Amino acid sequence: MGDQQWHSSITEIGPGKIRVRGYHITDIMEKLNFAEAVFLILKGELPNRAESEMMRAILVSSIDHGCSPPSVLGARNVIAGGNPLNAAIAGGVLVIGDSHGGAIENAAKIMQRWAKKEGAIKKLADDLVDYILENKIRMPGFGHRLHNVDPRTIKLFEIAKRCGFSGRHIELCIAIEKALEEKLGRKLPINVDGGIAAVISDMGFDWRLGKGFFIISRVPGLVAQAYEEMTREKPMRELGNRNFSYDGPAEREIGKHSDPGDS
Amino acid sequence: MGDQQWHSSITEIGPGKIRVRGYHITDIMEKLNFAEAVFLILKGELPNRAESEMMRAILVSSIDHGCSPPSVLGARNVIAGGNPLNAAIAGGVLVIGDSHGGAIENAAKIMQRWAKKEGAIKKLADDLVDYILENKIRMPGFGHRLHNVDPRTIKLFEIAKRCGFSGRHIELCIAIEKALEEKLGRKLPINVDGGIAAVISDMGFDWRLGKGFFIISRVPGLVAQAYEEMTREKPMRELGNRNFSYDGPAEREIGKHSDPGDS
Amino acid sequence: MGDQQWHSSITEIGPGKIRVRGYHITDIMEKLNFAEAVFLILKGELPNRAESEMMRAILVSSIDHGCSPPSVLGARNVIAGGNPLNAAIAGGVLVIGDSHGGAIENAAKIMQRWAKKEGAIKKLADDLVDYILENKIRMPGFGHRLHNVDPRTIKLFEIAKRCGFSGRHIELCIAIEKALEEKLGRKLPINVDGGIAAVISDMGFDWRLGKGFFIISRVPGLVAQAYEEMTREKPMRELGNRNFSYDGPAEREIGKHSDPGDS
Amino acid sequence: MGDQQWHSSITEIGPGKIRVRGYHITDIMEKLNFAEAVFLILKGELPNRAESEMMRAILVSSIDHGCSPPSVLGARNVIAGGNPLNAAIAGGVLVIGDSHGGAIENAAKIMQRWAKKEGAIKKLADDLVDYILENKIRMPGFGHRLHNVDPRTIKLFEIAKRCGFSGRHIELCIAIEKALEEKLGRKLPINVDGGIAAVISDMGFDWRLGKGFFIISRVPGLVAQAYEEMTREKPMRELGNRNFSYDGPAEREIGKHSDPGDS
Repeated sequence: MGDQQWHSSITEIGPGKIRVRGYHITDIMEKLNFAEAVFLILKGELPNRAESEMMRAILVSSIDHGCSPPSVLGARNVIAGGNPLNAAIAGGVLVIGDSHGGAIENAAKIMQRWAKKEGAIKKLADDLVDYILENKIRMPGFGHRLHNVDPRTIKLFEIAKRCGFSGRHIELCIAIEKALEEKLGRKLPINVDGGIAAVISDMGFDWRLGKGFFIISRVPGLVAQAYEEMTREKPMRELGNRNFSYDGPAEREIGKHSDPGDS
Repeated sequence: MGDQQWHSSITEIGPGKIRVRGYHITDIMEKLNFAEAVFLILKGELPNRAESEMMRAILVSSIDHGCSPPSVLGARNVIAGGNPLNAAIAGGVLVIGDSHGGAIENAAKIMQRWAKKEGAIKKLADDLVDYILENKIRMPGFGHRLHNVDPRTIKLFEIAKRCGFSGRHIELCIAIEKALEEKLGRKLPINVDGGIAAVISDMGFDWRLGKGFFIISRVPGLVAQAYEEMTREKPMRELGNRNFSYDGPAEREIGKHSDPGDS
Repeated sequence: MGDQQWHSSITEIGPGKIRVRGYHITDIMEKLNFAEAVFLILKGELPNRAESEMMRAILVSSIDHGCSPPSVLGARNVIAGGNPLNAAIAGGVLVIGDSHGGAIENAAKIMQRWAKKEGAIKKLADDLVDYILENKIRMPGFGHRLHNVDPRTIKLFEIAKRCGFSGRHIELCIAIEKALEEKLGRKLPINVDGGIAAVISDMGFDWRLGKGFFIISRVPGLVAQAYEEMTREKPMRELGNRNFSYDGPAEREIGKHSDPGDS
Repeated sequence: MGDQQWHSSITEIGPGKIRVRGYHITDIMEKLNFAEAVFLILKGELPNRAESEMMRAILVSSIDHGCSPPSVLGARNVIAGGNPLNAAIAGGVLVIGDSHGGAIENAAKIMQRWAKKEGAIKKLADDLVDYILENKIRMPGFGHRLHNVDPRTIKLFEIAKRCGFSGRHIELCIAIEKALEEKLGRKLPINVDGGIAAVISDMGFDWRLGKGFFIISRVPGLVAQAYEEMTREKPMRELGNRNFSYDGPAEREIGKHSDPGDS
């Protein structure tokens, strides 16, 4: 007995033929950058200039955050047990749950539900924060255990503004930050998860893809971390995710004259 | 008893500070595209123009290959069992082993060992193919169950040529294809794994990172596949990786006037 | 900076010393069977005779269910991709989510909440089923896509009865089956997940351990399936979870004279 | 296009019918303990009395080893990231690689290759140890970072002796320990991995199942560890696998009169 027929609208395959969302892979290889190709495969359509720029900024923003995130411990630990690279990346991605990276999904879910309502953004944000405080819910995407101000969010919204990208979700996100400050009496700054949640919501992505953006962005970091573990550490070492120190290159700048593509 | 101290040279973290390989994340968010950021985190240095272009082409090339790869079945099956997106991506990446995606690693290992030897490339390729045929080893990175000619490899090498990127490993890879044809009497074309293996070897990457390039490239495709499963199919359906058909957009072109960044 | 201190009450370790829940591993190796050791490690105390027998029956009951469960496809698929046995088992366990195996957890959660209420079991079951039908919720642990009557549940409850093991949760479970039949007009028999949920609830286990019982029971089956894939099938084959047929030993009985321990 | 037909000799399924290796699951639920059911599903036949006893001892022996093994860190870390129990167990099993638990597989592989050779066991052990020392290979299954004498191996071999279970692999294993001591000048005691490798080899199991025995045995421990993390610790805590202390029950004995099945 054969399995049931099913359908997919992502990629069409045949001898010598690979078409993603209708476009030949060779055409995509000629004309799109990686962030644009990610947009295409997730959304089904090509991004416009602003969407392309936002996608780039999102994916670059979360590429790594040092050795303390539990997903890094997860990936390194699989290597320490004597396993191949793909198992390590799987082990790292497995850790990216509700408490780590999951705030994008949860924040986007809330923002998408509230931004749909009628009324002024300020009023919606006030109502939302009242609801959260009354029900003693933690608003996902705000506050960070390390950063008082998350430099990634500032930059993300700066890029959004510069390329004319804005929308009701970004507005709501900023209004929530203000309302939280007013009602709590202290700042709970938008973290990078909250920022990404707002931007992907304005790009029209379903909140259920939220963790996907974080995973796509972070996997290169996990590969770098797993590879460093493989080449620099001994098997079965006793791992912890705090007791490391950084010994890489000192602070430097991406120079005007030495930028990529110019050597 | 505390854990042992260890070190990492990837990313430095502090309050308000995230520096990847020495560069501020905000600087990276301003100036690098995603492929360049991936290069930076894996290599430790910024890419030059040709390296940036090769990285882009590699990562775009393998973003998806329809529903037949076992990693897609792996990701969809985890969703079918009623699990979150991160578990599905982990389930997909877990499948990327020696028989699926692993050819990059294995081909790069062989190419890096042989390209180091002295002598003309043609002679090395002949010796390598003789060795392989005598020992009845399958040369990884050559031949494809579906594609007689892999369009991705052709395009990858075309881009390499155009941007002046070449090296001993790409030469060896092409010479191996010729030697295989001469000695076997039939063409075993370089597949995309073999092509990527040659290019990353010329970029100076360790073969042990081989599967990493494939994983970084394919994860966005797995996210799209898992999301489609989540939103389009019923839980616990009986899955197979052949009995699907494509029902997405018909063939189309990335137009000159509608290209990303122009709307 | 060292990691934060934390505590565990499971196993104490030192040179030449391994004590599980206070008992020396060598004492456990002498005196407990595997199901009793599982009870000890999960509950913290030794089982009595009835608990020991129920634990044995539960763990044996779900050891395998052929090749159609998605977790089997998951485990085999990881082998097909060219990966080690542990990755395959991880890949199989990863699939055991809300729609597969998760019914134990969800059924036990509901049963534990309702059995705590005051009142006659019949009345509670009626109220519960009314609540479920009104809210169009599917009652987890009842009905099976293949078995009209699940032989494992019948046997589980028969063993429970025989060894004098019973309690409010098993009673509630049976009463729910009756109430469902009365109110739906057709039988939705207790499946093995529902049966296990009732039994572990009467053993005093937290519903959050529900999936754990299924996983412990099923892992040996997954090892057998992954090993069969490894030794009997080719890599990268196109897998589906329906198109297999059984070619093992014909029907046979565990004879009185040839029972284990007697040859 | 349907998937290719394939076969399995493990379990036959039909409405109301579940037969494992030919035996009805209800018959198995009546007559086998869990270790015997594991033997049946892995081997395809019922164990005799000695095999049943050895299987029990093996599976009980490795049920847990405190919080320091990397698989425990793996499982707890997945919970810390905010994920379900099955993902945590998958994350733990994923870590069980060549450096952790993998010694069973590797030791069994070596023992099975050497025990097949003709000649006296002492001579074979001497040759094997000479070979290992000359090639600077680490003999898997001997030595332990914590235990000078592994109490589990002593007990395993004691039980083997008592129930008349012995064979060429156990003999070889003991001879290797002696030869290592003679030629190294210090004792490298058989650890539990080495002991299990010898016993399963004498039971006729393929070395490729080696990690499977460890996984089946350890999964209950991982469930207990993940559950403790879930119920006792906060999400996203900074985990390390050394900085814990035991706070469970003090040393105690499984009493003659309070043994399981007697209350």
